[in-house]
Parts: sequence; structure tokens; C-alpha cells
Amino acid sequence: VRIVLDAIGGDQAPGETVHGAVLAARDLRCEIVLAGPEDAIRAELAKHRTAGLTLTVVDAPEVIEMGEHPAQAVRRKARSSHVVGLRMVRDKQADAFVSAGHSGATMAAATLILGRIRGIERPALAILFPSREKMFLLLDIGATTDCKPEYLVQFAQMGSIYADRALGYRNPRVALLANGEESTKGDRLVQAAYPLLRASGLNFVGNAEPKDALIGGVCDVLVCDGFVGNMFIKQAQAVVKLALSLVQDETQHRLPLRLAAGLVPVAALVGMAQDGARWSALLGTFVAAPLLLASLLGPPLRRVRRKADYRYYGGGPLLGVKGVAIIAHGKSDASAIAMAIRQAHDAVERGAVTGIADVFVADAQGAPAAIELTNGQRPGANTA
Amino acid sequence: VRIVLDAIGGDQAPGETVHGAVLAARDLRCEIVLAGPEDAIRAELAKHRTAGLTLTVVDAPEVIEMGEHPAQAVRRKARSSHVVGLRMVRDKQADAFVSAGHSGATMAAATLILGRIRGIERPALAILFPSREKMFLLLDIGATTDCKPEYLVQFAQMGSIYADRALGYRNPRVALLANGEESTKGDRLVQAAYPLLRASGLNFVGNAEPKDALIGGVCDVLVCDGFVGNMFIKQAQAVVKLALSLVQDETQHRLPLRLAAGLVPVAALVGMAQDGARWSALLGTFVAAPLLLASLLGPPLRRVRRKADYRYYGGGPLLGVKGVAIIAHGKSDASAIAMAIRQAHDAVERGAVTGIADVFVADAQGAPAAIELTNGQRPGANTA
Repeated sequence: VRIVLDAIGGDQAPGETVHGAVLAARDLRCEIVLAGPEDAIRAELAKHRTAGLTLTVVDAPEVIEMGEHPAQAVRRKARSSHVVGLRMVRDKQADAFVSAGHSGATMAAATLILGRIRGIERPALAILFPSREKMFLLLDIGATTDCKPEYLVQFAQMGSIYADRALGYRNPRVALLANGEESTKGDRLVQAAYPLLRASGLNFVGNAEPKDALIGGVCDVLVCDGFVGNMFIKQAQAVVKLALSLVQDETQHRLPLRLAAGLVPVAALVGMAQDGARWSALLGTFVAAPLLLASLLGPPLRRVRRKADYRYYGGGPLLGVKGVAIIAHGKSDASAIAMAIRQAHDAVERGAVTGIADVFVADAQGAPAAIELTNGQRPGANTA
Repeated sequence: VRIVLDAIGGDQAPGETVHGAVLAARDLRCEIVLAGPEDAIRAELAKHRTAGLTLTVVDAPEVIEMGEHPAQAVRRKARSSHVVGLRMVRDKQADAFVSAGHSGATMAAATLILGRIRGIERPALAILFPSREKMFLLLDIGATTDCKPEYLVQFAQMGSIYADRALGYRNPRVALLANGEESTKGDRLVQAAYPLLRASGLNFVGNAEPKDALIGGVCDVLVCDGFVGNMFIKQAQAVVKLALSLVQDETQHRLPLRLAAGLVPVAALVGMAQDGARWSALLGTFVAAPLLLASLLGPPLRRVRRKADYRYYGGGPLLGVKGVAIIAHGKSDASAIAMAIRQAHDAVERGAVTGIADVFVADAQGAPAAIELTNGQRPGANTA
């Protein structure tokens, strides 16, 4: 497997991207092509031990900046990492493209250069979103903001194939994001998509509210239009950030306690040394908590934060185009980049994206395509 | 001020609703009419000291259940608390209606019985949503799921008047909920509403992403369609719930620590009593933290949870109808009910809803109405 990484894309590129590529090459023993300004990449590569790894550089001196109009930038900058990398995928010189850069440009370039799979009307960007039990695939999170009901059905089909092939979710349960479980809930789009999904042959479990998906774990694939899906993840990130900032604001007001926390263990140790330890035992037991608090509550809170932050899962696959394109979070650090490369690697190895092209044969009436999943069965009936 | 409370509406009615009415009557010295099955309400009232309070009961024996179709239920059940209460408001026998019951039925009944304000195309349900600094008014959260761009402009106008009159936010900053700050972001609806809001004469600060509203505090009024707004609050609640459940899951795996936390303070006290306190000081200082953790981190976490849960702010006003109708959360307890009654009281006293009718004079062209705010000035220019 050969993967092209947009080495210059992302807030921490090229330092973290190149580092991530080194980690992935070491871990996966796959070939990684670094696309971007050659000198900058070689300078970063020189900082790592790369003996025995297959890391090559392809020069792509033009950079698509965050403010640029996606499609225009892609057309104008033929020597950008996006265009150079995706052309390699198109020309079978590579199996997948990974970028933490301008996501709009990646989606535009992938659609323009790789082209849409025949029968697919619109591409969809999917990500893994955490729930209490396991993660579910959420799509679309921003590739197609204005949808027709039929697009949502195709998103559900593509998502089911990807969830099955790449994630090993057998006969994945598909839900439609809505403001209530009843089929009458939702806006016009959701209401129109509901009966189509019922009739799709997919394992459609009905509408799901956010809490059903996040807490109830009712679905493996959650479908919505790109605007609502983008709001879904942005609101989740904002709420987590707000909660953390409020906890911080609250605890910062407790300066006396924090001072006590710093002084008391010292006092306790001094007391012990003097063997006049009664008062130190008292203080130690009832006042020293805040310091320990950080060490005890810190790890679970960090794990929760990590679980709620999708960049730790690598990136999201753009589904519906002829090739594997993974869009990683702009803030990706080296380990997030390595995760995204692993995701691309797995998607290639398991045929998760080619699977869509293979099985997605829209019939002449434009009715939902028949979908074969890896268990050799048509998706089962609704289990809701 | 005379307020009708739907005493039978809500998950904890009539116990908590009647209790909330008693709290509010005591606090606000206003008159409260309890609508619902008379016997049940009187039985609850008997549990409280109500001497000196003006609490009356109006019999409304029919109950609209959660599963019922809103408009049908309202038409069929003329003796329900919703219909009885809102007719009192319509007939000037009361100034406001408050319900924690079936919110769809409350919205339908308010629209049918009170009628829409002349010039307003669709009603909008607003709530106060927390941000890091102060709260902002979010609308619509579910009254109108499918919107035209013009509706969003009216929501912004109504929200501005309410924020000014009821909340005292002078020259309120209005933002449009979108997936990016640029005017090109958003779905078709948002893109079409943007220039209309620019031209509206309101203090429009542009698009806001969730983090801009929640963390950045860029707006006093945040506008979106009812489907997106409903997802916005439901996702916030789901994420908070998920985070808390994950923290719980994490900490429950730490049974040994929890046992230690329970035993060590006991051991420390025993040690102190025996005056052989060196080991107890050690244990007390370095192991007893988990117990204290709850007492130290508990209050700020509870405050954050409270801040993130909108029911603690009472309820949301349905804007655009001819009268004050406040929709409280179905899970409201007595203090949340009392808050909702206070909100209704303040809205009446400050003319926040009548203000909409007074100033909302749509001109013949259907162009956005001229809005006078209480500071005597037209809303200022964009400050973004």
C-alpha cells in the first residue's frame, strides 16, 4: 500500500505531518509519499531516523491557504500538494491521499480529480463519532450542504458499506438524525428521506435524536445533510470546550484551596519528620486533596476529552469519489496524522471505498442500489 | 400581573408544578391561576402553606398526552389546560401562560388561540443558551422547522426586541448560526438570509459558528431555523450527558481507589487517636483524595451542569403570537417552574412580547419592519 500525505497541510505542518508519516511508516511498514515543498519536507525528515522506511518526497511547491476558495484554488494551483497527491491516486501511482490541510480544497480536488463514482449524486464526508458504547459513522459532515432526500439514502448506502468493510460493523444499523423518533419528526428533507430509507433494504432503525446516538448507541451509521452534520460536530466541540472552560473558571476562583493544597503536603512531611504528626495527619487527610485531584481525575477527564475529539481517530473518508481520500483535522499532531494514515491504509486493504464503486450500481430507475455486504447477505430488515 | 400555569403539564406534574407556583407566588407577589384537573391540584395545594398568596384554580380536566398530535389534540380537547389557559390570555383574564407540558401542543394552541402578530409570518420559540460570558437568546428551537430566509430576519427582529426589553441587552448583537464566519458559508437558507440581515437595520454581526457563540460570546441573539436550532440544543444536552457518563464510567473502574478513599480517613483518625500518627499522615495525605474530590470538584461540576441545562433558566418564550406564552422543559422541577413563571412575569412587566406587536409594523412591500428599541435609537450598524 502506498499513501500520499499532504505534508504541508495542517496547522502544525510540516513538522507534525512529517513526524506522523515517520510514525506511520514505522508502524504499518507501508510506503508513504510526502507531497509539498521539497526542501521544507527534507529538512523535517532529516530530524528523524528513517533508515529502513520507505518515505519518498514529491515536490509540490504551491500551497493552498485556508482563506482561498476551494475549487478556484484547486484549478489555479496545479502544483499544490492537493492536486499533485490526488493525481497520483487517480493515475494509480498511489492508493490513497491524506490531508490535514484546507478541507474544502481537499474535497473539491478529490471530486474534480478522482471524479464521482458512477451512480453517486453527491459525495459525503464521514467521521467516526464517539458514543457511550462504541463509535458510529456520521455523514455527511460538510461535503454537501444542501441535500435532496435521495442523497441521504446514498449517504446511508455508502456509510453502510464503509462501516461494514473498514470498521467491521456487520449489517450496520442506519439512523436518520432528527428531532424525534417518530417518522413525522424532522424538517421536510428528513421527513421525505424517512420512507425512502425504510424502503432501501438497508438496516434502517428509524430516526435518532442526538442522545439516542451518543448515549443510547442505537446506530452504527448516522445520516444527515452536510450543514446539519457540520453543526453537529461543531456544537459537540464547542460544548466540550465550554464545559472545560467553565470548570476552569470555577476552580480558578478557589485560590485559597489551591494554596493550601500546595503547602499542606509539605507541612505534613515536615510534621512527620519531626514525629509530631497528629496535626499533619489531620491536615493531610482533609486539606491536601486538590493536588491529588489533578492526578486522580486528570487521566479520566483527559480520556473523555480525547474520546470527544475526533482528531484522535485520524480523519474522515470522503465517500463517493473514485479513490481513498482521508481528511484529517487541521489541528492534527503527529499521532493524529499517523492515525489518519492508518485509516487510509485500512480502507485500502479492506476495499472499503472501492467496495462502494463495486456494489453501487444504481439501476436505470434511479432506485436505491442493491448492496452486498461482506457477510454475503443483503442488509437485514429493520430491527427497531 | 396574573399568570396561568398549566399545572398538569410536565413529567413531574402536578406535584412540582404546584410547588413551583407556590414558590413563585411567594417570591413575586403576583397572582397565579392553576389550570388542570381541579381535585388533583387542590390535593397538591393542600400540602403547602398558601396563606396570603393569590393562587386560584381553574378546572381543566382534559390532559393532552405526550404522544398526541399537537394541533389535533388542541382542537379535540377544549377543556385541556392548554386551551383553557390560553383562552384566558386571549380574553385578557390573564397576562401570560406557562406550560411544561407537551411543547408542540403549547405552540399549536398558542398560535391557534392567541393568533399571530400581524406581519409575522411564523412564530419562533426562543431560549436562553449559556456561553462563557453571559447567556444569549437562541431562536428558533423548534416552532418552525422549515424556514424561508425572510422568516429568519423576522426571528432576528423579534429576538432583538425580546433581548432588549426582557433581558436588558441594549442594541443586541445578532448572529446567524452557520458553519463558518464568511458570508459564503451555510446552506442555501443561511446564504440567502445573510444579505437580508445585513440590510435589516439590526445590529447584525455576521455568521457565528457554535464556538463563536458559546466561547467567543460574539452575539446576544443567535438565529437559525427550527430544525437546526432544535439539533443545537439537543446535541448540547447529549454531549454533556455523554461526557458525564464517560467520566462516571472511568471513575467506576477505579474501585480500589474508592475503597481506599473510604477506609483511609478512618484509619487516619484511628491512628491519630492512638497517637502513632506517622503512617496515618502519609496515607491521609496521599490516598484520601477521592473522597474529598467529590466535595471539592462536585460543586463546580454541578454548577457547570446547571449552566448547561436550560431548564434552570425557566423556559422559552414563543415569539410572534399575540400574548406571552412560556414553554418550560418537560423535566422542570419546582424551582424551574418558578423560574419560568418569573420569566413570564418579567416579560409582561417589561412589555417584551407586546413590544413585538407594537413595533412590528411590516410595510406594504413586506420589507423588514422598522424596530425601535428601548434606548430610543434604531439598532446600530454592524459592529463586526
